[in-house]
Amino acid sequence: MASQRRRFGHLPEVPVGTWFANRQGACDAGVHRQTVGGIVGTAKYGAESIVLSGGYEDDEDHGAFVIYTGQGGQDPTTKRQIADQDIFAPRNASLITSQMLNQPVRVVRGAHRASPYGPRTGYRYDGCFLVRSHWVKTRDDGFKVIQYRLEQTAVQPEIVDPDLPEPAYATTTVVRRIRDSAMASAVKELYRNQCQACGRVLSFHGGRTYAEGAHIRPLGRPHLGPDTTSNILCLCPNHHAQLDGGGLVIEEDGELVDTMTQQSLGRLRIDPSHDVDPEFLAYHRGMFT
Amino acid sequence: MASQRRRFGHLPEVPVGTWFANRQGACDAGVHRQTVGGIVGTAKYGAESIVLSGGYEDDEDHGAFVIYTGQGGQDPTTKRQIADQDIFAPRNASLITSQMLNQPVRVVRGAHRASPYGPRTGYRYDGCFLVRSHWVKTRDDGFKVIQYRLEQTAVQPEIVDPDLPEPAYATTTVVRRIRDSAMASAVKELYRNQCQACGRVLSFHGGRTYAEGAHIRPLGRPHLGPDTTSNILCLCPNHHAQLDGGGLVIEEDGELVDTMTQQSLGRLRIDPSHDVDPEFLAYHRGMFT
Repeated sequence: MASQRRRFGHLPEVPVGTWFANRQGACDAGVHRQTVGGIVGTAKYGAESIVLSGGYEDDEDHGAFVIYTGQGGQDPTTKRQIADQDIFAPRNASLITSQMLNQPVRVVRGAHRASPYGPRTGYRYDGCFLVRSHWVKTRDDGFKVIQYRLEQTAVQPEIVDPDLPEPAYATTTVVRRIRDSAMASAVKELYRNQCQACGRVLSFHGGRTYAEGAHIRPLGRPHLGPDTTSNILCLCPNHHAQLDGGGLVIEEDGELVDTMTQQSLGRLRIDPSHDVDPEFLAYHRGMFT
Repeated sequence: MASQRRRFGHLPEVPVGTWFANRQGACDAGVHRQTVGGIVGTAKYGAESIVLSGGYEDDEDHGAFVIYTGQGGQDPTTKRQIADQDIFAPRNASLITSQMLNQPVRVVRGAHRASPYGPRTGYRYDGCFLVRSHWVKTRDDGFKVIQYRLEQTAVQPEIVDPDLPEPAYATTTVVRRIRDSAMASAVKELYRNQCQACGRVLSFHGGRTYAEGAHIRPLGRPHLGPDTTSNILCLCPNHHAQLDGGGLVIEEDGELVDTMTQQSLGRLRIDPSHDVDPEFLAYHRGMFT
């Protein structure tokens, strides 16, 4: 049962922290426009909102960020996982679209035992989050589920002031690394900003060259990859985006494989002094296959 | 007169808001390790800190972000601009390094009439900012100065807790657009995510393709470019980074020019229905030449 029209981001008429006795209330307010289903969204336009209510044991609620599990593969009666989740299912795909568009997703928390951050009863609108990454998790029972890391944006609503010549901006609080580590700098220096995937060196104004230090096994939860040179590659922004977005994986022998076409994109350049750890490459492959 | 050793980011022993009677006090505290000069930094490691004290009439202080002008070209006695600034001068280059490394820069505000955000007297440490962009401004008198847009990060110090398995993160508040505009989405859709500069289509996990909507004349102050399709290109992350970083400019006929080598990188692909405005291309060229 869906209400009203599609809207993304913070709804000015619904303050962050608004409480609802039940799903119908959140639906009527336009915050989460369905009374069943954890995700409202489409593959084309992205996800409008999600509900965190403890339906998946793989979910983790850390307050400022959450690890959210996609839909599907559960037995409707027992709620046990009995099949893999499908990344092309529209709701699951919608959260990837939100990631690619950097588009805010409204988050509603429901009361449940597993989360100290939920309300004691009912449901609460907790503001907007951004989908920072997604991956495939292979559970201990062997079934594959899609997971997303969403990070909270500020509790402030968007600043939309028609009297300002500046386009509408929003203040958003994000948890992020605020600098390249010494490890990442060392790897970029070793390769003099040459991309290890394609060999390109990007030029920048002022006679500079530019590259990025890309962690193979991601740093954040739940991956907790280490910040060591053995887990960092020097990549151009294109190959960094593809690595993080799962568009390419790297075989143990350094072959770069496009996960969409399964074709080879060449071979990783590795300096003899760079101790890239095959274990991290295997972890990354596991995230996207 | 420099004190102590090079340190980047927030200094745990100096709370945000700490006041100093004079430059010597800020220097002794290690916040800005020189008693003369607005920028402390090197081209290799980046800028440690800047002082905003009204020395350049081209500076703008907007509180959460500042437009800061580089060093040089002023008559030492009259303080009038008498020459172009040099982007290769070490202090000016240091802020570009900070931009490329996404490395926080400490900001000290001095008392001066032009800024409502400074202290009434003396100097105050106002926390860390990130250098988001830089460009060349041609002043009304014809002289060129280097400018930087710095945006404030959170007043919270870094969270460095050795008991956490997660690497050290910081909470940072940034002013940013939190979604692609409908205009940017329309341009990306028109080109089906094919980069207008190189023709590449980047693949992403889940059968997706990825591109970015790049504004030619930047949206933020002081540029205030419009959010219209005539000011947006569909680019891969590499060419988006190069466009924003001034590594490439686009001639009126669509020729892509590498600003470092002055060589042609090919020609912009433009769909007949895409009304790219030559005025915005000219504005962008003016930012980096």
